[in-house]
Amino acid sequence: MSILPQREIQVRQSFERSNLMRAYGTTLTVVEKGYVELELPSKEMLQRTSGTFHGGVIAAVADTGGGYAAASAKDYDPYFVTVEFKINFLSQASGGLLRVKSKVIRSGSTMTIVQSDIYSVSGAEETHAAMALLTFMEIGSGRRSKAQVNA
Amino acid sequence: MSILPQREIQVRQSFERSNLMRAYGTTLTVVEKGYVELELPSKEMLQRTSGTFHGGVIAAVADTGGGYAAASAKDYDPYFVTVEFKINFLSQASGGLLRVKSKVIRSGSTMTIVQSDIYSVSGAEETHAAMALLTFMEIGSGRRSKAQVNA
Amino acid sequence: MSILPQREIQVRQSFERSNLMRAYGTTLTVVEKGYVELELPSKEMLQRTSGTFHGGVIAAVADTGGGYAAASAKDYDPYFVTVEFKINFLSQASGGLLRVKSKVIRSGSTMTIVQSDIYSVSGAEETHAAMALLTFMEIGSGRRSKAQVNA
Amino acid sequence: MSILPQREIQVRQSFERSNLMRAYGTTLTVVEKGYVELELPSKEMLQRTSGTFHGGVIAAVADTGGGYAAASAKDYDPYFVTVEFKINFLSQASGGLLRVKSKVIRSGSTMTIVQSDIYSVSGAEETHAAMALLTFMEIGSGRRSKAQVNA
Repeated sequence: MSILPQREIQVRQSFERSNLMRAYGTTLTVVEKGYVELELPSKEMLQRTSGTFHGGVIAAVADTGGGYAAASAKDYDPYFVTVEFKINFLSQASGGLLRVKSKVIRSGSTMTIVQSDIYSVSGAEETHAAMALLTFMEIGSGRRSKAQVNA
Repeated sequence: MSILPQREIQVRQSFERSNLMRAYGTTLTVVEKGYVELELPSKEMLQRTSGTFHGGVIAAVADTGGGYAAASAKDYDPYFVTVEFKINFLSQASGGLLRVKSKVIRSGSTMTIVQSDIYSVSGAEETHAAMALLTFMEIGSGRRSKAQVNA
Repeated sequence: MSILPQREIQVRQSFERSNLMRAYGTTLTVVEKGYVELELPSKEMLQRTSGTFHGGVIAAVADTGGGYAAASAKDYDPYFVTVEFKINFLSQASGGLLRVKSKVIRSGSTMTIVQSDIYSVSGAEETHAAMALLTFMEIGSGRRSKAQVNA
Repeated sequence: MSILPQREIQVRQSFERSNLMRAYGTTLTVVEKGYVELELPSKEMLQRTSGTFHGGVIAAVADTGGGYAAASAKDYDPYFVTVEFKINFLSQASGGLLRVKSKVIRSGSTMTIVQSDIYSVSGAEETHAAMALLTFMEIGSGRRSKAQVNA
């Protein structure tokens, strides 16, 4: 679903402020209403000794994608915290790129539930590497002036 | 419980090989049989713009601590993969240090279940910042020559 | 995907032996390869005092649907145990019927991951009431003579 | 920690109204501030064909114990809903009795996090059968006249 242009700008500006995503080298590629995609090229810091992405990195981008998907579903600029998440690792992420697809399952007045699917990408092929189910809580009653979520 | 000296060496050597833990600046402080502790001083890369630890960083050390706790419970050098984990964030981790305490709940022949508690440390005070429940699966049938878990 | 006729019979026979599902009044309505649906009409025993389905009932049918979906994905008659699951409750299940849709996310040699979505049904309308992500482990090496999963 | 006598009465009265717990035959044995215990004798309806407790039954009592622990931590009579929970099954619950021990990990203004440990009891021996980590949200702003949680 299309997102208000102002909201897309806010979401993207917030993402730019994230220290961890910058250190990882993560890009916010797609922003729609209630849906975002991230991409993360592999590099040594992010790898297990086997050369695959570390599970903790996969969890971090699943969480980050989830937070921005939650934020993108609101017409104002919300502030979310992660209450909890659960992630299942489905296969080794051995490709050179991670792609995260985060979609809102339910955007409630206080709680927002998001599903993040993480794919290991090699050329044109996506392999389902992990699936996460995340719970976010909105702090404060609504309209704030700065996109702060997860940055 | 005390751990075999050889096993402690294997666990510590494996930890030293972890690229992500080195990039974060994580230290393996305590190794017992079925129990480990990690410590991670704060730095900008690991912080949200609010200055607190990023949830994805907390999840990564919870996962890593869990994997080494699982490995430390075995008298041989096992190879584990993370099947899944769930983490609840209990409070903002605003201290200058994270301390992770990972203890094995059940060490089975195939599956090992671990609880990781993460504390935000300021001086002598520990604040419970997160709690994770993790499932690891042992790959292969037993004795291997290299400590590989989660590195 | 279509399932072998023999496998559908085994799955349905196993379901018939489940004491809990019989006590609840649950029906196995759809059996495909890696996918099943269950239905459960409301009755007082299953309700909170508010008249909605009890979360523990929703969790039980999510788990059961997940186990049969896992079993239905195999061409032989496997024996699964539930390693763990996580369930998010999305809205009150106030309809007169629960419908469970369980689909396999990954059917591995040891671990099978399943997503169960639970809907509260009122007439033709389905409301998404809960979503679960479940991990099953296959016990033993393959072919057994009796469909035992979760019964 | 000791609980206000009035609060214990409210928690116990709420438990008595639970249809599902009555159908199962569950007893609320211990009520403290932020901690409760439940007991559930086995019977055919609750069993898998193997004679062990059904995972869905274990999840239901883990959830119920968690909700009452959350409620018992408040000095007024709160109304909680289960946001989500995750449960790991550690061993077959083959004893004649389930014992649930639910303790509050964090009792916040909106969210309460609870750990429920479930034991299979045979005579004097307790076997750790499952561990759950649960998130509850308090609905409404505080004081209500009726103990409603999870009944």
